[in-house]
Amino acid sequence: MDAFLPTASALAAIYLVAIAAEAMSGALAAGRRRMDVFGVAVIAFVTALGGGTIRDLILGRFPIGWTQHPEYVYLVISAGLLTTLVAPFLHNLKRVFLVLDAMGLVAFSLIGCSVALEMAYPIVVVIMAGMITGICGGILRDVLCNQVPVVFRRELYASVSLAVCALFLGLRALGLDTDLNTAISFAAGLTLRLLAIWGGWRLPIFSYQERWE
Amino acid sequence: MDAFLPTASALAAIYLVAIAAEAMSGALAAGRRRMDVFGVAVIAFVTALGGGTIRDLILGRFPIGWTQHPEYVYLVISAGLLTTLVAPFLHNLKRVFLVLDAMGLVAFSLIGCSVALEMAYPIVVVIMAGMITGICGGILRDVLCNQVPVVFRRELYASVSLAVCALFLGLRALGLDTDLNTAISFAAGLTLRLLAIWGGWRLPIFSYQERWE
Amino acid sequence: MDAFLPTASALAAIYLVAIAAEAMSGALAAGRRRMDVFGVAVIAFVTALGGGTIRDLILGRFPIGWTQHPEYVYLVISAGLLTTLVAPFLHNLKRVFLVLDAMGLVAFSLIGCSVALEMAYPIVVVIMAGMITGICGGILRDVLCNQVPVVFRRELYASVSLAVCALFLGLRALGLDTDLNTAISFAAGLTLRLLAIWGGWRLPIFSYQERWE
Repeated sequence: MDAFLPTASALAAIYLVAIAAEAMSGALAAGRRRMDVFGVAVIAFVTALGGGTIRDLILGRFPIGWTQHPEYVYLVISAGLLTTLVAPFLHNLKRVFLVLDAMGLVAFSLIGCSVALEMAYPIVVVIMAGMITGICGGILRDVLCNQVPVVFRRELYASVSLAVCALFLGLRALGLDTDLNTAISFAAGLTLRLLAIWGGWRLPIFSYQERWE
Repeated sequence: MDAFLPTASALAAIYLVAIAAEAMSGALAAGRRRMDVFGVAVIAFVTALGGGTIRDLILGRFPIGWTQHPEYVYLVISAGLLTTLVAPFLHNLKRVFLVLDAMGLVAFSLIGCSVALEMAYPIVVVIMAGMITGICGGILRDVLCNQVPVVFRRELYASVSLAVCALFLGLRALGLDTDLNTAISFAAGLTLRLLAIWGGWRLPIFSYQERWE
Repeated sequence: MDAFLPTASALAAIYLVAIAAEAMSGALAAGRRRMDVFGVAVIAFVTALGGGTIRDLILGRFPIGWTQHPEYVYLVISAGLLTTLVAPFLHNLKRVFLVLDAMGLVAFSLIGCSVALEMAYPIVVVIMAGMITGICGGILRDVLCNQVPVVFRRELYASVSLAVCALFLGLRALGLDTDLNTAISFAAGLTLRLLAIWGGWRLPIFSYQERWE
């Protein structure tokens, strides 16, 4: 285990599944914009590894994670390109995909928290590092595809990231063993996200249509 | 006073008002896109603290300012969420809001210059650091809300930032005391921005509609 | 020659032409969005120097290149503003412009590779550094102009950057002299790009119109 995945080897395995799943979600978004295969590879890369990149930049953590792990780069680009071949079959796998994406969100959040904790940042920055890792890849994907980030509008998503980070830090403050803490936080976060999808839970919308600027 | 606000304690107070005002402007933009309260918090944060973040990244100044000031994070997120409650009343406060925003623009610019000066960057970089601090939060807000940044099109705005930075550096070269210089530059910049709003002053537009790429 | 342009003084001259050409392409894009002259200057700057900035950030290479070269900043802003004056005549120069842009793409890619090689990054990161330098300026330009980046959709462009970087690293592995290698890679990349434009060569498009997320 290196510093990139400090908590548990189970999390390392989930991380690999998660970045592959995020890369596939990026590739599908690129396909909706009729990009060429190069664009697909870029959006897959950015969706999967962009959140960690922004976190490392903001925390001043150099070298950036994936620059020391070429295998991550190959994995996400392969997953993105593979998606262009298997896309017709993915519709039937929608549920699998949503579960993988939920696992990714939670795993990314826990990894982001761990990284900031190691660097001794204040608690609010630790939580934000977890959320940035969890959601910024999807935000970059949507900006590059020229749409308002869905993360700001759909069922509980970023809030799940926030809840996972808060739970992890809370249990940690109570002195819980890190591996057990990670397992509990992961299970709780995954459950919350899946419940939110199935129940269509959303945060209140703020709609302000007056234009005066 | 820490290195983040090196010039005058008046500027520190104005800075707090300014980031709150910028956060509110971000929240209103999020409301126009019908985001949920989480999206509102993110856009508020990015609008208020994104300019300083980009400046610190570009200057290689770690740790990034707000990561050492959790209170700024709480302030801007609170201001953003509060906006969702008081939005119906803000229309009547349009003038107050524009003045606060103008104060923010000028204060951000002066702070950005000071930070780059301390790091001994060349003069053109000092001016750009001031402008980046002044305008990049608004640019990020507009990109995340999927619109062409208004700062590139409306009444003198970025130009005010440029003028303030140039005045500040000019008076500094003349040997003026930093506190007095800050006060004069602040007053001059604020006046210029308010005159530009009231007079509808704009820069010339460059319109090029031929498509040949 | 400084570390920014390590390979050949010919490349240094091409670099200056290239950033001026990229600045002009940025200015034209800003004109299509009816920005004011300040917006033109910003988009010109970002198009010309944004790719190198993102590369330096991702490689953790501080200070960022252009902050140590104020002359680059003056050059690209001048080129951008000049474009607003000469725009009516540029249509007739379309071919010249495409050649300059192609030279820029290839020169940026080779410079990006060299920078990452010096920092001893893994090969895949070296290639990505070349591509980031080559294409990210154009991506930032398009995001700020609120459109899907053309680099993801038009004739072979990013692929040329990839091919140039791969050729350069391949010849380097064979022990070729760096100056000769740079010259060969530059000529091959420029030829490939011009052939792609004239032949309308494109990568396969991935079109995925099903919406199920």
